[in-house]
Amino acid sequence: MVEYNPFHNGHLYHLTQAREIVKPEYTIAVMSGNFCQRGEPAVIDKFARAEIALKMGIDVVLELPTTFAIQDAGGFAFGAVSLLDATGVVTDVVFGSESNDIDFLWQVAKILFEQPEEYKSFLHEELKKGHSFPNARKFALMRYFSLKGWNEKNVLRLEKSNDILGVEYLHSALRIGSSIRFHTIKRVGAEEKDGSFKGKFSSATAIRNLLREKRWDETRESLPDASYEILMREFKEGRGPVFLEHMGDFMLAFFRLKDREYFEKIHGFSEGLEKRFQECARQTGSYRDFLECVKAKRFTFSRIRRLSLFSVLEMSKEFVEKSNEKGPQYIRVLGFTERGRRILAIMRKKTKLPIVTNMSLYRKVLEKTDLPVDRNLFIEQLKLDVKATNFYSTFFPSREERCGERDFAIHPVFLRAET
Amino acid sequence: MVEYNPFHNGHLYHLTQAREIVKPEYTIAVMSGNFCQRGEPAVIDKFARAEIALKMGIDVVLELPTTFAIQDAGGFAFGAVSLLDATGVVTDVVFGSESNDIDFLWQVAKILFEQPEEYKSFLHEELKKGHSFPNARKFALMRYFSLKGWNEKNVLRLEKSNDILGVEYLHSALRIGSSIRFHTIKRVGAEEKDGSFKGKFSSATAIRNLLREKRWDETRESLPDASYEILMREFKEGRGPVFLEHMGDFMLAFFRLKDREYFEKIHGFSEGLEKRFQECARQTGSYRDFLECVKAKRFTFSRIRRLSLFSVLEMSKEFVEKSNEKGPQYIRVLGFTERGRRILAIMRKKTKLPIVTNMSLYRKVLEKTDLPVDRNLFIEQLKLDVKATNFYSTFFPSREERCGERDFAIHPVFLRAET
Repeated sequence: MVEYNPFHNGHLYHLTQAREIVKPEYTIAVMSGNFCQRGEPAVIDKFARAEIALKMGIDVVLELPTTFAIQDAGGFAFGAVSLLDATGVVTDVVFGSESNDIDFLWQVAKILFEQPEEYKSFLHEELKKGHSFPNARKFALMRYFSLKGWNEKNVLRLEKSNDILGVEYLHSALRIGSSIRFHTIKRVGAEEKDGSFKGKFSSATAIRNLLREKRWDETRESLPDASYEILMREFKEGRGPVFLEHMGDFMLAFFRLKDREYFEKIHGFSEGLEKRFQECARQTGSYRDFLECVKAKRFTFSRIRRLSLFSVLEMSKEFVEKSNEKGPQYIRVLGFTERGRRILAIMRKKTKLPIVTNMSLYRKVLEKTDLPVDRNLFIEQLKLDVKATNFYSTFFPSREERCGERDFAIHPVFLRAET
Repeated sequence: MVEYNPFHNGHLYHLTQAREIVKPEYTIAVMSGNFCQRGEPAVIDKFARAEIALKMGIDVVLELPTTFAIQDAGGFAFGAVSLLDATGVVTDVVFGSESNDIDFLWQVAKILFEQPEEYKSFLHEELKKGHSFPNARKFALMRYFSLKGWNEKNVLRLEKSNDILGVEYLHSALRIGSSIRFHTIKRVGAEEKDGSFKGKFSSATAIRNLLREKRWDETRESLPDASYEILMREFKEGRGPVFLEHMGDFMLAFFRLKDREYFEKIHGFSEGLEKRFQECARQTGSYRDFLECVKAKRFTFSRIRRLSLFSVLEMSKEFVEKSNEKGPQYIRVLGFTERGRRILAIMRKKTKLPIVTNMSLYRKVLEKTDLPVDRNLFIEQLKLDVKATNFYSTFFPSREERCGERDFAIHPVFLRAET
């Protein structure tokens, strides 16, 4: 469950540690496509990121459908865990965690899953006070811990992004009744939120900040060679870097074309956000100012950025709700190694979802499958991925590279064993 | 019925000649807003263009609602003539004409209005051969002229843009039963299509080409002083020049987000154009290449550009058809002189449509009026103007100037008599 935006030394450390803990036969990563959970585009496109992952030792890279990749932690985790579970071959998942305390994370996940009455009423009260959902949940959990006589200070750990996501992974596993075993690894180096460069173990945010300023050489220290080389190749060929600010003017102009009724139909709009989007788009002259204008105590920047993407991609409430109930409807393979080919063969027998490797055959895959999929949802989710890619590629620096539907033109990356 | 994009010496000559012919008490212009009939944005915004018009001697500038301003010659003319007729005070209209032969133009207009059976079947046949509508119509008219024993070569004059538009003005006047008298003036100087600079009497296209290359000084020769000065003021303050190419990347990204079903709902899409739009947007990397990709014998560039605007502004088939049946539902005043104020006072008594001068009062205007307007259509047409302005202003060079809803923030231009 990764974004690899871009793949850095921290990711490599995580991968090595995960191998130590699980000693797996194969490693599978489910990775965001061209847009990430922070509501931003990836710096380079998903095929290149998949290629790096394979070079770094992952055997199979699956795409987390856009529907889930750009949702909040809950939606992201539900999509990712559902997808891994559906492969039928994943036995263990290792995720980074600031607390590195899996028992505590399970404790919280169970509360979220079981929704005891006391917790529910605490949450309701905290939301009424005007807190953002993450904060309201934190306060409600603290009150519930205190009620139970547990150490409520533990809950403060949930301010860290990896622990928040970790809880959601476990919560999702409970929801779908997955038998996957979960392990944590202590996160090393800089926190994701920390945008300052910390040398070898810098956060992806810090690395992106350097890339944004074209200080490419300086990122070398914090990136494995293969990652650095492929990044540079992509930039050289005009396929990146892509940043949210490149999309800013588009966003603002797009929002000005839409009225409140449009935003009301889009997933995640409530509490007057549709009005704020409409009004702020007209009152401001840049996407940056727009974000500041929409921002309020209850609304985090990440949420506003995600809502922006939902709007542009026209993700309706019905579509996302249905997806969040039924999960991903296909497994899309972005790349695999020679070893990965073997596990893919096993996966084909055990999978709970149709596997899409060659996009131009997706309709055939859907026709032939006898697995219980929601066919309309399959098409809708897949078309969203294609739409996201086609939109993303218009922001490539090279106009040449903007042409064509990459989801159909680019085949899954196949990495031969190096000799 | 003008665009003044921008106001040049040819326009001034036209205005002076028109005065000679009609010797009017007042002059009223109905002008396109921020988008023009060629399917392009105006170089500077409508308030500045209205201001120039007033300085050049127009007494009242009315806005041709976007609904009509960006349609083909037929829709443009119908909107403009309907609006002038609705004022209740317009007695004479003078338009530029290459042939300068009003009898001939009436002759054609009557055929278009009366639709004799023979003409209709000729048109049907020519369309079936795959000609664009303007060409099919030309050939059908030639055959009809020949049938009637008239000089069919006369019809070839209708290749000139002013004569085409002229026929549509007269056709519209017949349709609505207007008693306005029409006069022509021989067009002087360069043809609109001629993009090469011709000195004092250059076409608006040629002038825009110089502006595009920032060769501002060189345009001075072909522009009246007031026009040049206001253009320069607008550029200096970051409100222009705005060109279609600034919107190109937006268009391409926007079209990639839409599917065939979306385009099908939009006015003007038929004959597989929805498929071409969808496919070309994905296959090309720039709006220029997109236009080339969609282009075919039957589809002119102007039409494709107009369809692009219809799509972005989401102008549905139902909306435009209803508008083309019922005409504009309001008269929007962009500016007036002291003299203009007097004719506006008379207009208020004679008008067939509610007059909107102060945009923030438009709902009150609608509530109070006892004129027979289609209230929903009034709102829809007016909202389209606002949307077009809000979209247009995101392409101003200055981010400051992009803020705010200009339709509400800017009051109609009032020009005091110079002392």
